[in-house]
Amino acid sequence: MRSFNLFGRLSRAFQDYPSLSRIIVVSTISGGGLIAYAEANAYNGNRGHIAHADAMTSNGAHGIASSEAVPKKKKVVLLGTGWAGMSFLKNLNNPSYEVEVLSPRNFFVFTPLLPSVTCGKVEARSIVEPIRNIIRKKNVDISFSEAECVKIDPQNKKIYCRATVNSKLKGEEEFAVDYDYLIIAVGAQVNTFNTPGVEQNCHFLKEVEDAQKIRKNVIESFEKASLPNLSDEEREKILHFVIVGGGPTGVEFAAELYDFVNEDVVKLYPKVREFVKITLLEATDHILNMFDKRITNFAEGKFGRDGIDVKLGSMVTKINDNEISTKARGNGNTTNTPYGMVLWSTGIGPRPLIKEFMKQIGQGNRRALATDEWLRVEGFDTIYALGDCATINQRKVMEDISEIFKKADKDESGTLTVKEFQEIIDDICERYPQVELYLKSKQVRNIVDLLKEAKGDAAKESIELNIEEFKSALSQVDSQMKNLPATAQVANQQGAYLANCFNRMEECEKNPEGPARFRGTGRHRFHPFRYRHLGQFAPLGGEQTAAQLPGDWVSIGHSSQWLWYSVYASKQVSWRTRALVVSDWVRRFIFGRDTSGI
Amino acid sequence: MRSFNLFGRLSRAFQDYPSLSRIIVVSTISGGGLIAYAEANAYNGNRGHIAHADAMTSNGAHGIASSEAVPKKKKVVLLGTGWAGMSFLKNLNNPSYEVEVLSPRNFFVFTPLLPSVTCGKVEARSIVEPIRNIIRKKNVDISFSEAECVKIDPQNKKIYCRATVNSKLKGEEEFAVDYDYLIIAVGAQVNTFNTPGVEQNCHFLKEVEDAQKIRKNVIESFEKASLPNLSDEEREKILHFVIVGGGPTGVEFAAELYDFVNEDVVKLYPKVREFVKITLLEATDHILNMFDKRITNFAEGKFGRDGIDVKLGSMVTKINDNEISTKARGNGNTTNTPYGMVLWSTGIGPRPLIKEFMKQIGQGNRRALATDEWLRVEGFDTIYALGDCATINQRKVMEDISEIFKKADKDESGTLTVKEFQEIIDDICERYPQVELYLKSKQVRNIVDLLKEAKGDAAKESIELNIEEFKSALSQVDSQMKNLPATAQVANQQGAYLANCFNRMEECEKNPEGPARFRGTGRHRFHPFRYRHLGQFAPLGGEQTAAQLPGDWVSIGHSSQWLWYSVYASKQVSWRTRALVVSDWVRRFIFGRDTSGI
Repeated sequence: MRSFNLFGRLSRAFQDYPSLSRIIVVSTISGGGLIAYAEANAYNGNRGHIAHADAMTSNGAHGIASSEAVPKKKKVVLLGTGWAGMSFLKNLNNPSYEVEVLSPRNFFVFTPLLPSVTCGKVEARSIVEPIRNIIRKKNVDISFSEAECVKIDPQNKKIYCRATVNSKLKGEEEFAVDYDYLIIAVGAQVNTFNTPGVEQNCHFLKEVEDAQKIRKNVIESFEKASLPNLSDEEREKILHFVIVGGGPTGVEFAAELYDFVNEDVVKLYPKVREFVKITLLEATDHILNMFDKRITNFAEGKFGRDGIDVKLGSMVTKINDNEISTKARGNGNTTNTPYGMVLWSTGIGPRPLIKEFMKQIGQGNRRALATDEWLRVEGFDTIYALGDCATINQRKVMEDISEIFKKADKDESGTLTVKEFQEIIDDICERYPQVELYLKSKQVRNIVDLLKEAKGDAAKESIELNIEEFKSALSQVDSQMKNLPATAQVANQQGAYLANCFNRMEECEKNPEGPARFRGTGRHRFHPFRYRHLGQFAPLGGEQTAAQLPGDWVSIGHSSQWLWYSVYASKQVSWRTRALVVSDWVRRFIFGRDTSGI
Repeated sequence: MRSFNLFGRLSRAFQDYPSLSRIIVVSTISGGGLIAYAEANAYNGNRGHIAHADAMTSNGAHGIASSEAVPKKKKVVLLGTGWAGMSFLKNLNNPSYEVEVLSPRNFFVFTPLLPSVTCGKVEARSIVEPIRNIIRKKNVDISFSEAECVKIDPQNKKIYCRATVNSKLKGEEEFAVDYDYLIIAVGAQVNTFNTPGVEQNCHFLKEVEDAQKIRKNVIESFEKASLPNLSDEEREKILHFVIVGGGPTGVEFAAELYDFVNEDVVKLYPKVREFVKITLLEATDHILNMFDKRITNFAEGKFGRDGIDVKLGSMVTKINDNEISTKARGNGNTTNTPYGMVLWSTGIGPRPLIKEFMKQIGQGNRRALATDEWLRVEGFDTIYALGDCATINQRKVMEDISEIFKKADKDESGTLTVKEFQEIIDDICERYPQVELYLKSKQVRNIVDLLKEAKGDAAKESIELNIEEFKSALSQVDSQMKNLPATAQVANQQGAYLANCFNRMEECEKNPEGPARFRGTGRHRFHPFRYRHLGQFAPLGGEQTAAQLPGDWVSIGHSSQWLWYSVYASKQVSWRTRALVVSDWVRRFIFGRDTSGI
């Protein structure tokens, strides 16, 4: 590499100033990168002084060397290298930890581009980043092992792991790891809802290997259908692509497949073009039902015009190796349809490790690990869970209503004055975010107005509530509680949040910055995790995308597609994948998709 | 694609003028692209008027439409989409054929870059080109089926095929195809020389999937060795990479692996760097023994300095899943060495189809199909074989010596005069290329001098030879016969040669252009195939390459590396792969190799 110092220096410049990348790509690719900019700044408030601390420590000495001055590093074990884990690692800057990362995959996958991989719009390798690349740029002592955690022993603060690499080494493949803090970010797996035949006959789209398999299978379907010794009926069967589940993944795959057929198959497999059929099965009344109605309508209309057969209210009951059986929700009729390939994308369920751990800790009947608002697994101070394997079990106001009242009633008079209440409003709103949502939904300006309303328009400043009146005023508040969606955006924000907590753990032990404890004294160490929804895309094919942005702003069409390109380029975790993804897009525009069956 | 007409137009311009690509890339990447230019012109003499004929037919009508005027198209069946097959398809321009291509792979692989794929210098997808992309640009009626030929029936001019795509379709998977001309270009497979355990425990490097598997396995070895619960001994075993065979493939893989360890592993897996060991086993006295001695010496010296353990005179006798057993040729001692991964690259043997076919036609004890100098399988006028599955069975002068004498002796005097002989010299030299090689080796100016020498310096123009004297003059000539090497270069030139024959079949039936028939009357239709060696590269790692060019010109070092880049970029079969390969090289300079285990 001696001769290429210029390249080396350039690359180091890109790697050292990741913010540079955001700015350049956003301004180069599109002028519409508003969201990208917004999210890039999401945690900047915190990042500011982290970067400063970082600079200070790295002036001294690096990694292990610098730690020798500190008595003993706390050991953090991180399970998983998905969005949550990657985001935690990227944002962790405090060198007083020793971090051990364990995952069966030694890379991070940019999952929102998985559907693009299925038909060759983007290459699989362009959306993965080796986790060791991320680690080695940090001044924190981080190590990685390609292994899967098979059991968690919270009593002894120990986990048991199994190596997943299938090298030929004989002997001990299992090992135990101790931890001071355990961070569980292993993600989820596909949920088949125990439908017979799904495991054996369907494709999924969770991992990068899934996307590669689908791509190979799509190409093979066209090759198979082009063989000389087939009847038209057989060709129709082979080229019948069925997608189960009208969520963003299913819809995007349908759109990718349609584009592939329309842009490339017509040229390369012209004789079988006419036999292609795409069917989208959705159990509810609409596809994309988590989106705004305008988007749903547009998507259904576009798919109708494209000839994609959208079957709403259609439940899959069984799949054998030739036919897929569906039951119409309306009349209960069962239909059997021959198919060539099925993609199953209906939802997620817990992985075996999480199922087992939930049983162990008495959460056996849940669908994901329950955590508190600080992402700690309920009942365990040193175990955190985030991303798709966990849900935040937001506390209900009504559960704590007596404690809140007691805390607010400083003079212990048995009634709350407005003044007393105002002193504690901020803490309530921070601890129970549903309060704010409820006020918004009722279009009430602030909580005092709500109390006044409960009292029935009494004199302005002089209202006083007893505990029963207080309860009745807030009785409907908890109806606004919602679980966060299982998206990359949530996992990403949770990882950054948690890293920030770890970065400032010592500082916040001394000067807690969270809301007051209603069931104890003092304050919580940290602000609770709060999700900032930055919008969501649904690519619909033909260079058109639907975007639902914060504040109910909906945009559909070619301009959103450019916004999509811009955001997805800017959100890449490294300059390397950014360059690869953008060049893949350009390559596809110029040369079309690669249809080699590898 | 509506919005991207500019891209479309640009891309079409590139596709329509492939020569443009050569010129631009060669001049952009390096000034040293002499060879690239030379080979690009290799068949230009013939191509000139092909291009002209092409333009004429495509002015009229395209593909099938234009064929309706012609009575019936001859059906050409081509087996294989490797170098020979691809080159045939690219150069075929006569629309009077109907071509059916059959291959288990729907893509062409640029095999010289396979070793680059093993450690991530180049991506697998960058070196493959869908065969349908090549086909659709032709004005010849060509179809492709992803199927493998399992039996050839030359009596009935029929072959039997089996579909290789593993789609779920039930029923008839086999089908028969009739042919007028059959072109066999199926390549060869790895030869294990029946060494026990090779099939089960070794990697090969023939297909693009092999390279992908090796890459995954290399990464997994480093991940495995990084696990916490291992002894140093175990780490050493896992990271012991053994390469069997010191030919260009084995040497290039060793060099790639060394570069990978040196440039990327040190950064990403610093703790296990010290355990890496690379061993190269070669049964003969030197590695790269088909190259000039200067290259062999340089390579052995460089590998020695790099710490690659080159074991010469070392035969592999057995491989089990833990150890590789070798026997030293000198003392016959057997050594067992633990290993992590073995690459077996010792040579090639025939595929089952070829073995079976050779048995059928009485060539059962050969290692490849024997063809005549026009690439026709011996004894079959309508079956051609080229590339690695065939060897040209060059006729010996001594076999035909009486016929040559008879033909030359026009006045049937029983003796040959110089004048008589001179009339037939060109035909002899064309038909028996060994004559020219022999003259060169004896440093004799021309064949007449050879005859004079046999006669013992007789008077200048008046020599006359009888048959015995003629025989003795030419008795040593056949010693110069050599089989062509099984390289991409040979296959590529053979494919182009054969396409050219097919392009001008009708024309040459009427006006044969080949040498005179010694065992018959008239002339052969075509010139026999003649290989033009354009040089060979052996990349040795560290941005150094050895190049052996025609005329015994040897170049070793960084400049040859740039020549290598330039030639390999210019030799890509499409603008698409050219762009991908070049961008892969650039990416590696900037970002290093991708170590994701996918």
